[in-house]
Amino acid sequence: MTHLETLGVTIENAVSTHRFPVEPANLYDPLRYFMTLGGKRIRPALTLMSCNLFDIPNEEGLPAALCIEFFHNFSLIHDDIMDAAPVRRGKPTIHTKWNNDIAILSGDVLFTEASQQLTAYSDERLSPLLKRFNATAKEVCEGQQMDMDFETSALVTEEAYIEMIRLKTSVLLGCALEFGAILGRQPQATCLLLRDFGIRLGIAFQIQDDLLDLYADPEKFGKQVGGDVLSNKKTLLLLTAQRVAEANNDPRVSELLAMPADEQKTATAKQLFEELGAAKQVKETMNSYYQQAMLALDELDAPEEKKKPLYELSAFLMSRDA
Amino acid sequence: MTHLETLGVTIENAVSTHRFPVEPANLYDPLRYFMTLGGKRIRPALTLMSCNLFDIPNEEGLPAALCIEFFHNFSLIHDDIMDAAPVRRGKPTIHTKWNNDIAILSGDVLFTEASQQLTAYSDERLSPLLKRFNATAKEVCEGQQMDMDFETSALVTEEAYIEMIRLKTSVLLGCALEFGAILGRQPQATCLLLRDFGIRLGIAFQIQDDLLDLYADPEKFGKQVGGDVLSNKKTLLLLTAQRVAEANNDPRVSELLAMPADEQKTATAKQLFEELGAAKQVKETMNSYYQQAMLALDELDAPEEKKKPLYELSAFLMSRDA
Repeated sequence: MTHLETLGVTIENAVSTHRFPVEPANLYDPLRYFMTLGGKRIRPALTLMSCNLFDIPNEEGLPAALCIEFFHNFSLIHDDIMDAAPVRRGKPTIHTKWNNDIAILSGDVLFTEASQQLTAYSDERLSPLLKRFNATAKEVCEGQQMDMDFETSALVTEEAYIEMIRLKTSVLLGCALEFGAILGRQPQATCLLLRDFGIRLGIAFQIQDDLLDLYADPEKFGKQVGGDVLSNKKTLLLLTAQRVAEANNDPRVSELLAMPADEQKTATAKQLFEELGAAKQVKETMNSYYQQAMLALDELDAPEEKKKPLYELSAFLMSRDA
Repeated sequence: MTHLETLGVTIENAVSTHRFPVEPANLYDPLRYFMTLGGKRIRPALTLMSCNLFDIPNEEGLPAALCIEFFHNFSLIHDDIMDAAPVRRGKPTIHTKWNNDIAILSGDVLFTEASQQLTAYSDERLSPLLKRFNATAKEVCEGQQMDMDFETSALVTEEAYIEMIRLKTSVLLGCALEFGAILGRQPQATCLLLRDFGIRLGIAFQIQDDLLDLYADPEKFGKQVGGDVLSNKKTLLLLTAQRVAEANNDPRVSELLAMPADEQKTATAKQLFEELGAAKQVKETMNSYYQQAMLALDELDAPEEKKKPLYELSAFLMSRDA
């Protein structure tokens, strides 16, 4: 097993042995269901890897890792309601299997559970952990609101888009990593470096998501290639293509948006985004964030063999073709 | 001004000077709106009164008081979605004025803000405050779920009903009061006594709500008298009447439930609940909880003049006729 797989087993074990109360069943059954849908458990693994940098054993890091994973799942449960998503990890979402009210409330109680995990720690570590956790939770809400606002917004800049993905998804990776530094009683500079590493890695990962949607190998991609294009979703690819086209009075992006949602549209987008140089620019932006993440990790003062799992996980995340 | 009114001004001032971020406007405008709809601010006043017992000045107690008030408002925002309530304090609810998604998310961020208030306190007080807060938040969610479950549940016992109101509303009063004891570094027994006082007072207050719905003076009552009866809501009055009637094979409660929702139904309920002795039993239960609350307060080892505002607030809460 790789280091990530070993940590995954440790985390999966902690998640599955966490006991939610039996009653009210309509509140806790959805959580028992949702928490066993799986997922890659990347975020809690980052916490444990970060703990390991400072010789914090897995056992000691697990409450912080669970805090992150519970919070992540809380945000998925509520986002699924807002996105009216019927399926998550191949299974019905909570609001589909039960209803919206139950999804709201079981999400709320999972948020509580996330925060309560932090009370496992000694007084002087609880305060910085909780401050970082709450600040992160707030930012994740802000990012989700920006994402919803973008759907009806006429003008979304590439900078605003990157700020949205920073808040919606990347700060949680940063928090997951910073938790290890806080638990290791590291100076503020180390905390910031790890947070920065996580945020930049997270942004690179999300941009890659946009690229894969259109340029993934259909044989390996789990969902329909071009889904974002078919729904005219404002991804970094589309926003970049729009900016380039507008600067050149090129009508082709507007024409693309007006096309019906079929294979022809996907093929047109693929070629157009290449021709406009949008695909290249987005790849460069992604690589730039990834390189910045690597530089932050390089700078981190910790034994190389303990940083190795973080380098490996980063490379693994950026090497997906689906 | 009464002591409660003076504290109300202090709290209102703290609420109105709390600055939510400007952007995203769709996330924070709803909170600015909701937090200025007013309300009696009973819960944060309880925190400050409890702080005063142990010579904690208002200024020091305010973050804990705001935590309670923010949490209370978070729960109202989410409950209003679940109850599909169009109006709160005479104004449109957030999900009505904006939409459900915005109400979910602005509620979430307010929950975060509540918890973040506690980080104002020194390390050794943060841990017990956060543990109590999270445990309470969890119970409030459980109570709300029980309340929703009861709507479609064939058999609801009076005990289950009281457990529901204990969780849904009373534990938060207990937490508000216990916060003062924790801030005052009081022994566990004092913390429990104040929590117990709040829980019992809260249960008495909620039972009074059930009674007032039917037996309030229509001239003074802010809403339609008999609203619960007209909607066949399972209140303690109805549950008690059902139990008594069933024990006597008396069909009148079943007949009442089948009546159309008009004035005749309200008048019938009023008389029937008296004849069955349900109104009397419910009043006795209410008085019993109130007396138990007073006994807890009597037992509390604190100067009488500092306990006085709590006696006065209790009497005020139980003397409403609307």
